[in-house]
Parts: sequence; C-alpha cells; structure tokens
Amino acid sequence: MNGTELIRARRSIRKYKAGEKLPREDLQTMLEAAMMAPSANNSRPWEFVVVESREILEQLMSAHPHTGMLATASAAIVVCGRPDLQYGKSFWPQDCGAAIENLLLQATELGYGTCWCGCYPVLERTERVREILQISSVPVAIVAVGVPDESPAPRGFFDPQRVIYR
Amino acid sequence: MNGTELIRARRSIRKYKAGEKLPREDLQTMLEAAMMAPSANNSRPWEFVVVESREILEQLMSAHPHTGMLATASAAIVVCGRPDLQYGKSFWPQDCGAAIENLLLQATELGYGTCWCGCYPVLERTERVREILQISSVPVAIVAVGVPDESPAPRGFFDPQRVIYR
Repeated sequence: MNGTELIRARRSIRKYKAGEKLPREDLQTMLEAAMMAPSANNSRPWEFVVVESREILEQLMSAHPHTGMLATASAAIVVCGRPDLQYGKSFWPQDCGAAIENLLLQATELGYGTCWCGCYPVLERTERVREILQISSVPVAIVAVGVPDESPAPRGFFDPQRVIYR
Repeated sequence: MNGTELIRARRSIRKYKAGEKLPREDLQTMLEAAMMAPSANNSRPWEFVVVESREILEQLMSAHPHTGMLATASAAIVVCGRPDLQYGKSFWPQDCGAAIENLLLQATELGYGTCWCGCYPVLERTERVREILQISSVPVAIVAVGVPDESPAPRGFFDPQRVIYR
C-alpha cells in the first residue's frame, strides 16, 4: 500500500482474533516506525512498554474504562512520555502523538489492527497505569495490537470548514 | 513508496526552492490526510490555517525563533487545537500530533519537504501566532511546506533501550 492509501485505510479496531501471537520482528518494525517520528530538538521523549502478559493486560483493562478490546488483543504497547528529556519544554504530548500515529500506520501496513486508548492527562488513569507497569515515565496511550476480526470501512474526509486561508 | 518506506524517508527539510507554488489540490490531499488521524471520541479537535501571504509568513518568522525556513517555503500550514471540541478532556495536543504526522507523511509522499515548528505550550509564541492569524484556536505547530532543496539521509533507528517488556 502506498502512504496515501495507508493513511486512509487505518481504522480503530476493537475486535481481534483471540490467541494470536505478535512476532517480535513485527513488534520491532512497529517500534522502529514510532521512533522515526520527529520530535522537538530530536529529543525523542518517549519509551514503550510492551505488555504481553495476560495478567497485566487484565490489570490494564481494570485501570482504563475503554480498553475492553485488550481481552483478545495480542499485546498492548503503552506509549509513554519522557518529559525529563525535553529540558523544561513540554512538547512531549504532541511528539508522542506523532510516534503513536507512526506506530498505528506501521501496524496497519503489516496487517494488524490497533486501537489508541488515551491515558495522560486523565490523571487517575495515568497513575494507575504507571503503578501497574512500575514505570516513572508518563503513559500517554495504551495501544492495543492484534489480528483484526472486523474490517470497518475507511472514514474521514477533507472538511473545508476546518481550513482558514491567510 | 509504501508506508514502511515513507515513515523512514520523512525528514525535516529546512531549505526549499524559492518561488514554488503549492497547488490547491496537493494542499487539500495533505489536509485530508491530517484529518484522517484518529482522535479521542472522533472529536477531530483541530483546524488548519494555510498561510500563503508573504507578509504573514514574515510575521510568523518574527513570532517564532526557529522558522527561518519559511523565507523560501511555499506555504505554512498552522495546525491548531480546538479544546472546545473535547468537552473538558485534554487529549487535543496528542491528537494534533497525530494529525501533524499524517500531514508530514502525505507531503513527503507528494514530493514536498516539511518542517514542524512547535508553538503550544510555549505561551508567548502561541499568543503571538494567534494574534497574527486572528484565530481563537490554539496554534500547536507551524508546519513549513515547500519544494525541497536538500535531501538529508534517513535518520533514526530502533533503540532497544527505549523498550520495556512486561
């Protein structure tokens, strides 16, 4: 798929085929794509927690109300911000947004489905996910990854009302 | 280019061929790509200010210290957040980050160069850009777009130190 098609093909997937494994090689390709995102001063203010443990996936489901799809996902990739790498500037949420989008697009290209479940800045969610994962970075999103068991049609369009010319 | 290649080919471009126009059709393809990004509750908390006026481009350069490349860019696309569309939740900075990344990737696919210059949350920058553009939304980034006059090699890599397994 070319990039133009890929951007338009990506959809949030909430039903996955249960019991499918995510090969380490595909996981690495996705994480590499995420790490190719631009960031302020090339600070790369992110880290990634790959959750494959069923027990920890269940804990994440209890910590975040919109992550039911993790029941059949192959893994969760928790994308976390590292504010400590930006020297007082706070571009890290949008930088992580770019990294997440690359991750979703790469997963789509490899045939996986994903769903972006936001954490930060909902503080109780963020804190519980931190505790579960035992990390000091800031969980921006839980990204479910799995083999799709639904294929929603593309959605979205150019909306001229959102564009101003100067 | 397939998506895997495209994600790895994108680089920040700071030198453009002067005097090149950005056709409205290509602009629309880029903005459509941006608008295809996922967002919390599909709230699409963004708007886009396309700046083609040389006079306003000069004003943006005076408002933001790292936008010298606008001197030869064909246009700037200022990606702005619309917090009013998220009902008290504040996922809009990372949602805008995803929209910006789609914009950069689509521009790269079409043969353009781009450079992401962060505004929000640097408040004096954000306020000055708002004043110049006469908008009430929140400028997250000034994205320079032009015909590249440099071709930096791909950069970035999978860094295993940024990955934690659970």
